Amino acid sequence: MEIITSAQNQWVAEARKLQQKKFREERGLFLAEGLRLAEEAAKAGSVQEVYYHETFGDTDRGAELLKALSAETRRFFQVTAKVLNSLAETETPQGIVCVCGQRRLSIRDFAPERGVVVLADGIQDPGNLGSVLRTLWAAGGSGLICLAGTTDPFNGKCVRASMGGIYRLPVFTDMTWSGAARWALDHGYTTVAAEAGGGVDYRQMKWPDKTLLCIGNEARGLLSVVAEEVGERVFIPLAEEAESLNAAVAAGILIFSSMN
Amino acid sequence: MEIITSAQNQWVAEARKLQQKKFREERGLFLAEGLRLAEEAAKAGSVQEVYYHETFGDTDRGAELLKALSAETRRFFQVTAKVLNSLAETETPQGIVCVCGQRRLSIRDFAPERGVVVLADGIQDPGNLGSVLRTLWAAGGSGLICLAGTTDPFNGKCVRASMGGIYRLPVFTDMTWSGAARWALDHGYTTVAAEAGGGVDYRQMKWPDKTLLCIGNEARGLLSVVAEEVGERVFIPLAEEAESLNAAVAAGILIFSSMN
Repeated sequence: MEIITSAQNQWVAEARKLQQKKFREERGLFLAEGLRLAEEAAKAGSVQEVYYHETFGDTDRGAELLKALSAETRRFFQVTAKVLNSLAETETPQGIVCVCGQRRLSIRDFAPERGVVVLADGIQDPGNLGSVLRTLWAAGGSGLICLAGTTDPFNGKCVRASMGGIYRLPVFTDMTWSGAARWALDHGYTTVAAEAGGGVDYRQMKWPDKTLLCIGNEARGLLSVVAEEVGERVFIPLAEEAESLNAAVAAGILIFSSMN
Repeated sequence: MEIITSAQNQWVAEARKLQQKKFREERGLFLAEGLRLAEEAAKAGSVQEVYYHETFGDTDRGAELLKALSAETRRFFQVTAKVLNSLAETETPQGIVCVCGQRRLSIRDFAPERGVVVLADGIQDPGNLGSVLRTLWAAGGSGLICLAGTTDPFNGKCVRASMGGIYRLPVFTDMTWSGAARWALDHGYTTVAAEAGGGVDYRQMKWPDKTLLCIGNEARGLLSVVAEEVGERVFIPLAEEAESLNAAVAAGILIFSSMN
């Protein structure tokens, strides 16, 4: 087997472009690094290319994964540490980087029969957005709609924080509020806006079977969602003086509440 | 007013040592940077020294805060940008760094009359631990006990993620499991261990008035908490295939559930 030793190799150079949002969008691909994410990608059948360092096969778990991946894709490349580091975004890439396919679905074909869908309206921190995906997956949620101005869910940090949720849930990006509201209407989804105050205490909330839960920006709340156009408003009551919760924590409390 | 222009100035050099855990523990102090955290520190009466850049007073909010802080402490120093950056841990320190006092309380004197206390058993990510503090504050929780092996809650990243919770709640560090269990017994607190599976579904949980909620390490769960010695075990049911929640999200769901 040939080993790629140059970071200028054509495959490697093309894969590295996926560190940029522009190329991720253009190609419908993204990067996932590390053992755990590569395992989840393999389970989900998302892997299109594999770049690994030979030491990755030294553990039983690594060797088993390489075996499965080599059966799944012919674009299976052993690379030097230098090449691997050029593809990786963390300081400890754990010996493997995969190019994965985005789950591309037209919003017109997205018609879940039940369960919560999150609408992210301006979440900026990729760790928070990734955590929302992880929570949605764990709660049995149905998908994620990102309005324009939200951080890219296929960003490496978001992918890592999702712990694999990114492979499992349909994700829609760069939507407008009116497009999302129309989708909700067409599919019987009730828009529920999470707000800092006002609306219904989440503990008293009668959650609809089909909830589109709108989560806003970390500092400024909902940006594009039009308050007068949502179906319901919900809040988490906080202790005096405390101002807010972390966006991913607030989303987690509401997502699980909506599934109960 | 004299401006400190050297990062080797004695006050500045002493303050900078607080970037290290060793000195934070020795002195019972920690660093807080940025407008928001400095405001919260001022409200909580925690500020002992102030280092600010002259441009910090250019906004109304900044000017107002400086006025309040200069009344509160005589260790009030205008510094150059270079000096400020030497004290700051973020890339955009926003013109102010405060030295704050840790809320030091002996565990023997910690006797809350009700409400949840979190026991952190090996949480490694300071962002997660800070987020737990933020949630605890927002939920009206009573305190945080960290077992040895947990990241330092007075670490700068944790302080920032707590959004001010670090000033408000009593925090105990480097405790042993037996010490924490003894404390719980002495004060009528029931230990409740959050586990990946087993125990009671949190939706069916009859939360005690006084809950000591044990949250484990991100990857390995509870490390020092002895399963046979806890009063109750609780879990959050997850969708098939999904393995886990982010530790701060799981803690948030359980903390709010316990307050209902």
